[in-house]
Amino acid sequence: MTALPEGVPDAARRRGRRPAGEDRRGDILAAARAEFGERGFDATTIRGVARAAGVDPRLVHHYFDGKDALFVAAFELPARQQQLLEGVLAGGADGIGGRLVRLFTTVWDSDEGRLRIVALVSAASASEAGARMLREFLAREVFARIVARIGSDDPELRAALAASQMMGLALARYVVRLEPLASADPDLVVALVGPTIQHYLTGPLPASPDAAA
Amino acid sequence: MTALPEGVPDAARRRGRRPAGEDRRGDILAAARAEFGERGFDATTIRGVARAAGVDPRLVHHYFDGKDALFVAAFELPARQQQLLEGVLAGGADGIGGRLVRLFTTVWDSDEGRLRIVALVSAASASEAGARMLREFLAREVFARIVARIGSDDPELRAALAASQMMGLALARYVVRLEPLASADPDLVVALVGPTIQHYLTGPLPASPDAAA
Repeated sequence: MTALPEGVPDAARRRGRRPAGEDRRGDILAAARAEFGERGFDATTIRGVARAAGVDPRLVHHYFDGKDALFVAAFELPARQQQLLEGVLAGGADGIGGRLVRLFTTVWDSDEGRLRIVALVSAASASEAGARMLREFLAREVFARIVARIGSDDPELRAALAASQMMGLALARYVVRLEPLASADPDLVVALVGPTIQHYLTGPLPASPDAAA
Repeated sequence: MTALPEGVPDAARRRGRRPAGEDRRGDILAAARAEFGERGFDATTIRGVARAAGVDPRLVHHYFDGKDALFVAAFELPARQQQLLEGVLAGGADGIGGRLVRLFTTVWDSDEGRLRIVALVSAASASEAGARMLREFLAREVFARIVARIGSDDPELRAALAASQMMGLALARYVVRLEPLASADPDLVVALVGPTIQHYLTGPLPASPDAAA
């Protein structure tokens, strides 16, 4: 309780019987994901997130240094997923495409994962600020890790190509729900899309526009 | 108009004199694209579109049989693009991947094309109804044409895979603006992504989940 900032109203303090500010922080992040997903980045406000989470706006400001920081925290990879991603990357270049598709499909096939990716795509397409946030999220949470690991030529271009196919898979399977891809067995998705990711990350790429067929 | 013989299609009649109604219809469609893109499918109303177009809501109802029909009309491929797509498909299976990427990149690199694809992705990720609309749009405007042309095994799965990469390219290059893909020369994009589309449409696919590596 003493960890709560001054000025938090009684109503908020009363629920604070639960051990932790961490629960409140989690409530705020869950509300933020829902609000960003529903309204897009621009129309989402600290006040609205606070209302949805049932807390005072000052508590949101206590935990997060503004809307940008709230967005990044709401959508950063959970520690467990960061570890899984590190594990996939640590396995080396051989078969990395299939392992990445397996990892993301497993995460996105869960209810929470689906909500998360739909909210990210929604925020990115709703406003320039949302697009910038997703860009920075991808750069920091995913790309930096992949680029540091694959150690081949053109790592940024390869990471962007792989991201384009992974985001497209998310859009097709979870947002637009295109059949038969939406209902396909995860094993089949890995077998279909894994080789594309593998090629983008480790295969030969055309050296220049002159190589275009 | 009365000089035209009976049996001349309405479309042909309308082209002749260019009555004011055509401009109004175009205004309504432009307003609808902007509203759907900005607010998503669910939050967009006939009344709001009418207001944005500067017309009476009854005129919107006169042209379009409800919000679904308005959405479909707002985002259907212009006749010119339908012809371009038919041309690409008529060229046969050889090199079709590169030609499709060339066509879509050319369309989306234009200001109007970019607005259109961003609005479609935004509507699809904002609500289930928007997702359904995009699904039906893709099925009717693009997939049916591709599936009818490629004549190989699993045409629906192939079309869905190709769509996943094309939508992902749209998301990466035009919505999220991932570098270096966002600024890449169209020739390079064709050389990079064309082979993926080619593989999905005409290459060997794993026959079943058992084929997963």
